[in-house]
Amino acid sequence: MSAAKKTLKVALLGAGNVGAQVARILLEDAQALEARTGARLELAGIAVRNIDAPRDVELPRELFTTDASALVRGADVVIELMGGLEPARTLILEAIEHGATVVTGNKALLAVDGPSLYEKADAAGVQLSYEAAVAGAIPILRPIRDSLAGDKITRVMGIVNGTTNFILDAMDATGAQFQDALAEATRLGYAEADPTADIEGHDAAAKGAILASLSFHTRFALEDVNCQGITAVTAGDIAAAKDAGYVIKLLAIAEKLPVPGSAEKNDGGEPTMGVSVRVHPTLLPREHPLAAVHGAFNAVFVEAESAGELMFYGRGAGGTPTASAVLGDVVSAARRLVLGGPGRTETTTGVLPVLGIEAVTTQYYIGMDAADQPGVLAKIAALFAANGVSIETMRQTVHRDGNAGSAELRIVTHRASEAALAATVEAIKGLDIINSVTSVLRVEGV
Amino acid sequence: MSAAKKTLKVALLGAGNVGAQVARILLEDAQALEARTGARLELAGIAVRNIDAPRDVELPRELFTTDASALVRGADVVIELMGGLEPARTLILEAIEHGATVVTGNKALLAVDGPSLYEKADAAGVQLSYEAAVAGAIPILRPIRDSLAGDKITRVMGIVNGTTNFILDAMDATGAQFQDALAEATRLGYAEADPTADIEGHDAAAKGAILASLSFHTRFALEDVNCQGITAVTAGDIAAAKDAGYVIKLLAIAEKLPVPGSAEKNDGGEPTMGVSVRVHPTLLPREHPLAAVHGAFNAVFVEAESAGELMFYGRGAGGTPTASAVLGDVVSAARRLVLGGPGRTETTTGVLPVLGIEAVTTQYYIGMDAADQPGVLAKIAALFAANGVSIETMRQTVHRDGNAGSAELRIVTHRASEAALAATVEAIKGLDIINSVTSVLRVEGV
Repeated sequence: MSAAKKTLKVALLGAGNVGAQVARILLEDAQALEARTGARLELAGIAVRNIDAPRDVELPRELFTTDASALVRGADVVIELMGGLEPARTLILEAIEHGATVVTGNKALLAVDGPSLYEKADAAGVQLSYEAAVAGAIPILRPIRDSLAGDKITRVMGIVNGTTNFILDAMDATGAQFQDALAEATRLGYAEADPTADIEGHDAAAKGAILASLSFHTRFALEDVNCQGITAVTAGDIAAAKDAGYVIKLLAIAEKLPVPGSAEKNDGGEPTMGVSVRVHPTLLPREHPLAAVHGAFNAVFVEAESAGELMFYGRGAGGTPTASAVLGDVVSAARRLVLGGPGRTETTTGVLPVLGIEAVTTQYYIGMDAADQPGVLAKIAALFAANGVSIETMRQTVHRDGNAGSAELRIVTHRASEAALAATVEAIKGLDIINSVTSVLRVEGV
Repeated sequence: MSAAKKTLKVALLGAGNVGAQVARILLEDAQALEARTGARLELAGIAVRNIDAPRDVELPRELFTTDASALVRGADVVIELMGGLEPARTLILEAIEHGATVVTGNKALLAVDGPSLYEKADAAGVQLSYEAAVAGAIPILRPIRDSLAGDKITRVMGIVNGTTNFILDAMDATGAQFQDALAEATRLGYAEADPTADIEGHDAAAKGAILASLSFHTRFALEDVNCQGITAVTAGDIAAAKDAGYVIKLLAIAEKLPVPGSAEKNDGGEPTMGVSVRVHPTLLPREHPLAAVHGAFNAVFVEAESAGELMFYGRGAGGTPTASAVLGDVVSAARRLVLGGPGRTETTTGVLPVLGIEAVTTQYYIGMDAADQPGVLAKIAALFAANGVSIETMRQTVHRDGNAGSAELRIVTHRASEAALAATVEAIKGLDIINSVTSVLRVEGV
C-alpha cells in the first residue's frame, strides 16, 4: 500500500445490531474519518444473507449484496461482524489471502480459531484487530497490547458479560431469585431468547481466552478455559455474601501461577510459571473497584508488576458502543495503511503452559445447613483441619422457627486448592450432623 | 531505520523517582523487552546533574554522565524524565533534530510547549509520546488517540492529581479540615514540601490541557485552562456535600460546548462548537464512578458519542507505576522502529475555539449563613428567580444553640452560567438577612 493511495475500500460483512451502526457512522462521519486517517474510507458494500431483512438503521439499498466473497476480494479493509464460525472464518481467511486488513468483533471465532488466524495474518503481513470482541466499547485490548507492553501483567479479572452482570446485580439489589432476574433481563432485552451462552459462562470464557492470550503473550483457546456459569447461584447465596460484606460477580480470570510441583523439580529453585484461565461466580469484597460495576456495564481489572492495579470500565455491548470499538480499529488500521509500513501483529513470545484448575488456590465460601447441637462447630473445624484447609471466618445462624433444630453455617477459608476443598466438602457431606452443603463459591480480590 | 537494525540505543535523561525505575526495568527485563520489540534496547547512558546523588535504585556507575547533550546525539530513543522546562526542552529539541524517538513524562513542559514540540516532531517525522505525563500508570492517552479514533469524544472528566484526591478523600472520610489533611498527606509522602502546584490545581491544569488536546484534536496550552484549586474547600463544605449525597473531587474537565451566541449568528441553525477546559473542586453524586476513586488513585471518565461512558482507573503517580507507562511508550516506539514506516504522530484536524468559563453552564451548590426569621426563604428564592437562576433543591438547618437566630441554607441550582450565578451571589451578599455566603461550588455528573 503506497502513501499515495487516498481511498480505502471498506467491505462490511453483516448488518446486525453492530454492523448497521458501523455502516451509519462510516457514511455520516466520512469527513471526520478522512481527516483523522488521511484516506477516504469508502464503504464499498455490505454483505448480508437477506437484503430485505429489517434493520435498526436505514442504509442505502445499493450497498447491500449477498456475495460476501466478491466484496472481500475487492476490499482494502474487511470488517467482519457476522458472528458465528462460518462463513465468517472462510471470509476472514479470504481477506487475509488478498492482503486486506481485517477488523472483527467475533469473539466466538477468535476463541476457537484465534491462534491459527493470528498466525495466518502474521505470515501474510496483514493486520487483524478485534477490540470489539472483548468488553464492547471499552478500550482494553490495545492498552494491554501496547500501553502495558513494557510491564508484566500478573492477573486480569473481568466482568465481561453484561447479561450475567445485570442478573447478579438485580439479584443483589432486589433479593430476586435467579430465574426471576433472568426473566427481567430477557424482558428488558439484556438477555437473548436463548441465554445459554451467557448464563453458562461460555461468552465470558471466549473473552477470557482472548484476554489471556494478549496479557500473557501466549495463545489460549476456549478449551483452555475452566468454565462455570451462574445458574446455580441462589438468592440465599447473594444474601449471605452481602451479609458478610461481599458481592457475587461472574468473573473471567487469567493469572500467572506457579506450575504445581515445579519448584521441587527445579531443585527447590524458582518455580516454572503457567497461566490459569477460568470463569466462575466469585465473591468480591464490596469495596473492590469491580464491585461497583452495575447493570449491564463491563469492566476489566488488570494487575501488573510495575503499574499496579488498573481498571477499564464501560459499556460491554450494544450496537453503537461496540461500533465505537470497531471504528477505532478501522481508523488505526487505515492510518497505518496510509503511513505505510508493515502491520503490527501480536507477539507471542512467551509460551506459558496452560494450567488446569488444580493449580489454582483461592479462598472459598462454603454455606451449609447443619444440625443445631453441641459440638457441631468443633467437628466441622476438625474436618477442615484434617483436610489441610484453614478457616478464616465461621458464622452460624440458628433457625429458631420453621426449621427448628437446624443452623446455617457459613465458612470463608484461607487459600486452598480445588482438590483440598473438594475433599473437605465431600467429607462434610458425609457427616450426619450436616443436612446439606448449600453453596461453594470462590472468593477473589481480598 | 532499517528492519535489520537489531540494537536500539536508549538515552535516559534523569534518574529521579521514575527515571531510576525505568533504568532498573530496562536492565532487569532486557530479555523480555527484546522479545517484545524485536530489538535489543541498550541503555546507553543516564544523564544526571550529580552522579553521586543518592538514588532509589542501585545502578551501574559507568552508565551515568553529566553530558546530556552528547548522550542524546548518539541515541535512537531518548527518554526525558528530568521534569521542568529547561534543559528538558532544549534536549528534546536536540533529540528531534537528530531523528531520535522521544518519550517524555514532562507534563509541565508539554502543557506550556506541547503544540510547538508536536509540530517539530511532525515535521521531522519522529515519534513523540508521553503516556506517563497524564495519570501515571493509567493507559489513557493511547486509548483516546487510537481506540476512540473512530468516535467523537464529548467530555472528559479526570481525577488527575493524587495529592488533592488524597486530601479531599481524607477530609471526606475523617471530617478533617484542609490544613490537617494536607499535613497528613505531607507526612505520608503524598504531598511535596511545596504543595502549591498540586493544591492550587496547576498540575491538574497541565494534564487537563494535554487530555483536551488529544480528545478534541485541537491544541490547548496551560493558559487555556480555567483553574481553581482546593485550598478554599472546608470541612463544612465536605460535610454538607456528604449530607446531600455528594462527594467533592478536584476534576480536570474538558468538554465540547456551543460557542455562546453562535446559533443566532448561524441564523438560528446549529451552533458553532468550542471546547472549555477547566479545573475546579466539583460536587459529584456519590454513585458516580469517579466518586469511588479513593486515596491517591487517579481516574479519567470519558464520554463519547458512540461508546457512551468509559472510565480508566489506576495509580496516578509513583516511580514504578509511572515507569510502566514510560516503558509502554518505549516498547511501542521500538516496535515501530523495528517494523519500519514513519512515526505515528498526533492529528490535529479540528481546530475548535477555546471557550472561556462564561460559556460553561453547570449546576451550582451554594452554602450560606442566613438570619432565622420568617420570609428569608421567599426573599432568597425571589432573588434567584430575578437573576434567571432556577433552584433544584433548598435545605435549611436552623442553629438552635451557640448560634441562635441563624440558619444554614444550602441550595443546589439547575444549570446556570457563571455570570448569572455570580450576579446572584453578589445580590445575595447584599441582603441584610444574609450573614455570609460560605461556599459556591460546581456540581457535575448528575
